[in-house]
Amino acid sequence: MEEVFEAYREDLEEIEAHIRRNLDSEAPLINEIAAHILSGGGKRIRPLLLILCARLNGYVPKADLVLGSLIEFIHTATLLHDDVLDEADLRRGQPTARRIWGNHASILVGDYLYARAMQEIAAFQNHDVNDVMAIACRKMAEGEILQLCANRQTLLKEADYLRIVEYKTGALVASACKVGAIISGTSPMHQDRLYQFGLYLGIAFQLADDQLDYTANGESLGKTLGQDLMQGMITLPLLHLLQACSYEERQELTRNIESKTIEENDLLHITTMMEQYGSLQYTTTRSLEYIDAARLILDSFEDSPAKRALAVVADYMVNRDR
Amino acid sequence: MEEVFEAYREDLEEIEAHIRRNLDSEAPLINEIAAHILSGGGKRIRPLLLILCARLNGYVPKADLVLGSLIEFIHTATLLHDDVLDEADLRRGQPTARRIWGNHASILVGDYLYARAMQEIAAFQNHDVNDVMAIACRKMAEGEILQLCANRQTLLKEADYLRIVEYKTGALVASACKVGAIISGTSPMHQDRLYQFGLYLGIAFQLADDQLDYTANGESLGKTLGQDLMQGMITLPLLHLLQACSYEERQELTRNIESKTIEENDLLHITTMMEQYGSLQYTTTRSLEYIDAARLILDSFEDSPAKRALAVVADYMVNRDR
Repeated sequence: MEEVFEAYREDLEEIEAHIRRNLDSEAPLINEIAAHILSGGGKRIRPLLLILCARLNGYVPKADLVLGSLIEFIHTATLLHDDVLDEADLRRGQPTARRIWGNHASILVGDYLYARAMQEIAAFQNHDVNDVMAIACRKMAEGEILQLCANRQTLLKEADYLRIVEYKTGALVASACKVGAIISGTSPMHQDRLYQFGLYLGIAFQLADDQLDYTANGESLGKTLGQDLMQGMITLPLLHLLQACSYEERQELTRNIESKTIEENDLLHITTMMEQYGSLQYTTTRSLEYIDAARLILDSFEDSPAKRALAVVADYMVNRDR
Repeated sequence: MEEVFEAYREDLEEIEAHIRRNLDSEAPLINEIAAHILSGGGKRIRPLLLILCARLNGYVPKADLVLGSLIEFIHTATLLHDDVLDEADLRRGQPTARRIWGNHASILVGDYLYARAMQEIAAFQNHDVNDVMAIACRKMAEGEILQLCANRQTLLKEADYLRIVEYKTGALVASACKVGAIISGTSPMHQDRLYQFGLYLGIAFQLADDQLDYTANGESLGKTLGQDLMQGMITLPLLHLLQACSYEERQELTRNIESKTIEENDLLHITTMMEQYGSLQYTTTRSLEYIDAARLILDSFEDSPAKRALAVVADYMVNRDR
C-alpha cells in the first residue's frame, strides 16, 4: 500500500490542497473544527478510489482531485455526526471534536460540511454526479437510522445487518468509485460495476472494523475497545455468536445486551466465547468474501497502473491498522 | 391571510401530497418522525412564497409545487436539528421529536431529510436551483455556528447579530423566493430582487420571533417562554436593553447572562426592564422596517394576484400567532 500512496503522492497532496482551500467559512470555528478532524490521520481512501476509478478508464486529471476532496468532506461530516451519536471521546487516538468543542458544534459543522460539499459538487453541473452523491448521503442517514432501530435487537438477521452496513458504509465508498467512473465517461454498465466494486469494499471494510472492535489492541485502534457492544450495537461477530452458542448462553447474552449494563468483564467473557465459537473467524471469512467478489469485478477491466493500485487498495481495506 | 390560504388551497394541498409521497423511506422510523414534525401545524410559508414568486412572473405550475414541498423538507430538517441544539421539549404546542424519539433519531432524520431533498432537487437538473439550495443549507449551518459562538457574548454588535439572523433564517426564505423566480424564467436581476425580498421577510420574521420569546403568552406561543434567554442566546431585545440601560444595570445583566443561572424571576425582571427602555418596541420597529423594504421591492413588479398575495404574506410574517 505504501507504494500506491507513493505513486499517487502528488495527486493526494493536491487533494489536501483542495480540502484546505474549502476551509474558508466566515465562521472561524467551522474551519478550526473541520481542520481538526480532517488532519486527524485519515488515509483519504475514498478520494483515492475516486481518482483510481476515473483513471482506470483513461481519465486525464484534474476534476477528479476536486471531487475527491469533496467526497472526503462528506465522509468527515458523517464522522462528526457519528462521534456525537456514539458519544465517542477518541478517534484515531485523538480527542474527538465533540470532546473538545461539544456536541452542538459537531452537529453543526457536520451540517456545514455536507452542504458545502453538495454546493461544490453542484458547481460541476453534472447531473449524474449530483444524483449519485445525494443518494449516498440519503442512504448513509437511512443506514444509521436502521442501525439505531436495530440497537439491542438480538434477533436481528444477518441479511438485515448487511443492509445496514451497505447503507451506512458501503454507499459512500461505492459512490466514490462510481463518480470516478462517471467523469471518465465510461459506459453506464462500467459505472455500475465500479459502484458494485466500491460497495463490496465498503462492506468488507465495515466487517473488518466490526471485528477489530472486539479484538484490536486498544492503543493501535485509536479508540475505545468494545464500543459497539457497550452501546448495544449488534454487529456480525455478535450476531454469529448469538446463533452459534448454546441455549443457556444465548439467554444470558440476550439478558446482558438488553439490560444495557455491559462491563469490562462481560466484554472479556464475550470475546472469549467468540473465539471459542469461531465468530471472529467467521467475520473475517465473510469480509474476505467481499474482497474476492470485488477483485472479480476488477478482473474485467484491462490491465493498467490504476487497476493494479485498486487491487492493492482492496486488500488494504481489510488489513489496515487504521 | 385566510383569503390567501383559501385562494391557493388546491396548490397547498398538492404540496402536502408531495410531502407525503416522499415519506417513503425503507426505515419506518424515518417516516414516522418526519410525519410527526411535518404534520405539526406548520403554515408552509416557504412553499407558498416559492409558488407565489414563480407565478408573479407568469409561471404555469406544477414543478413549483414539488420544489415547494422540498423546501419544506429542508426547513423541517433544520427544525429537527434546532430542537436538539435548543434542548426543546415543545414545538407548536406538541412534544418535539427529540422528546419522543430522542436526540439521536432527530439528528439522523434531519440528515435524511436534507439528503432526500437535495436528491429530489438534483433530479430537476437545474443548476441554478441546485446552487441556490446548497448555498442556503450551507448558510443556515454557518448561521447556527455563528450563533453558538455568540452565546452569552453580551458585547455582540447589532450588525453581527443581524448577520446571524440573515444566515440562519433569512437564507432559506430568500432561496424559496429565488427558486420560484428561477423556474419562472425571469431575468437574473428579478431573481436577485426576489431573493432580497425573501431575505427581508426572513429577517423580519426572526426579529418578531425574538420579540415573542419575551412577550408572548406561553400557551399561544406553543413553546416555553424565555427560552432564548435561558440558553444565553443574545437576541435583539436583549442587545438593545444592554445598550440602553444604566451602567449598574448592565453590570448586573452581564453577570446574570454569563453565570448561566437565569430563573423565572430574572426573566420577569428583564422583561420589565425591556418595556421600560423600549427594547421590545425597538425590535418591532426594526422588524417592520424590513417588511417595508420588502414591500418596496414588490412595488417594482406588475400588479397580479400573486403580487397581492405576497404583500399579504409579508405582513403575516410579523403578525402571526404561529
